[in-house]
Amino acid sequence: MTGGSSGLGFALAEGLSAAGLAVSIIGRNADRVGEAEARLRGLGGAVRGIACDVSRQDQVGRAFEKIGAPVGFLFNVAGVGQFGPVEDITEEMIDEVSAGNLKGLMLASAAVLPMMRAAGVGTIVSVLSTAALVGRAQEPVYCAAKWGARGFMEALRVALKGTPIRTVTVYPGGMRTPFWSAASGLSPDVATFMDPREVARQILRVVLDPGGTNVTEMTISRP
Amino acid sequence: MTGGSSGLGFALAEGLSAAGLAVSIIGRNADRVGEAEARLRGLGGAVRGIACDVSRQDQVGRAFEKIGAPVGFLFNVAGVGQFGPVEDITEEMIDEVSAGNLKGLMLASAAVLPMMRAAGVGTIVSVLSTAALVGRAQEPVYCAAKWGARGFMEALRVALKGTPIRTVTVYPGGMRTPFWSAASGLSPDVATFMDPREVARQILRVVLDPGGTNVTEMTISRP
Repeated sequence: MTGGSSGLGFALAEGLSAAGLAVSIIGRNADRVGEAEARLRGLGGAVRGIACDVSRQDQVGRAFEKIGAPVGFLFNVAGVGQFGPVEDITEEMIDEVSAGNLKGLMLASAAVLPMMRAAGVGTIVSVLSTAALVGRAQEPVYCAAKWGARGFMEALRVALKGTPIRTVTVYPGGMRTPFWSAASGLSPDVATFMDPREVARQILRVVLDPGGTNVTEMTISRP
Repeated sequence: MTGGSSGLGFALAEGLSAAGLAVSIIGRNADRVGEAEARLRGLGGAVRGIACDVSRQDQVGRAFEKIGAPVGFLFNVAGVGQFGPVEDITEEMIDEVSAGNLKGLMLASAAVLPMMRAAGVGTIVSVLSTAALVGRAQEPVYCAAKWGARGFMEALRVALKGTPIRTVTVYPGGMRTPFWSAASGLSPDVATFMDPREVARQILRVVLDPGGTNVTEMTISRP
């Protein structure tokens, strides 16, 4: 679970633990990963926290070495928001938004895929945003990264068609999570946004019990 | 004209020159830019070559300072191809493909937009690929960059709705250009691919004579 320290990643880890699965949560900040690990263990989960910047291929490699056991599910949930008009785009903004939303998702998927192929089973879930489906004037770089991740997941889906490995791409609307306090350039009223535990519930129903189908894309919005 | 030294960028520069417009061609390789400039001048064009890596914001700034005059059209045509399966993705591949297809397109657009707003007129044309519309198993990182550029152009289109500045996003199929000799991981038979001058003609008809309409997207394929 990338982005597992807080928000939707934490809620998904909580749900997977409650379903009896061992979960490794990955996050950039070692302190926050440790706190989330302790909270999830307090709830009875078999949870391990791993500090790792998934936009760095060497760190991703080491993280999967630590996990070791066959990985049944990869959840790409990590994300960062930097917003503002096109005129205010900087090279640093592009690099940070790409690393946080796109590069790490590709590197983690590339690293887990050989393990899943060897095991003959697996599901790669990427949680993007409705910003991957439309253009938004104040979110040009964020839209680029999210559409980019959508294109990558489409390529992955085509590559894995007919294999036992599934892909699920999720496009949630805004959630009440720490994403917004870390984001720059937009300060929406998150009080009306979705509860991440509700969103996690919708995702896990599909991912944990797909039956004979492939739900390859899900858009989840406020009523 | 980014990517103006060869292929579709050169063909577009040729067409714009023939229509009587002054053209600045931008490319990373100073030698190739110089050669293209000489060829286009030999055809009677008012052409200037500028060596610039558009994925570097400082270089983009200096390039537009050199151009100086109001910029009526920005053509984002530069592109690089690195192909292969998801398992072979590397951090370096992601960085190079992102820089060559996505980052430079965003930085050039961000740099030209204030000039176009000040002039009250302008058109930003981005030439992507049909890889921005579908997923391809052997093109995961390329698809990510091209879908990312498509998302950015969608955000730009929404931001500029109702202003005098137009955006055009073009999705061409394969062309007979030096793109393929520089690309790694795929070696298609380009003999059947489109002539870049034909593709340039289709684009310029729309861009130079839009009438009262906005053709915001064009897909151009082999018959």
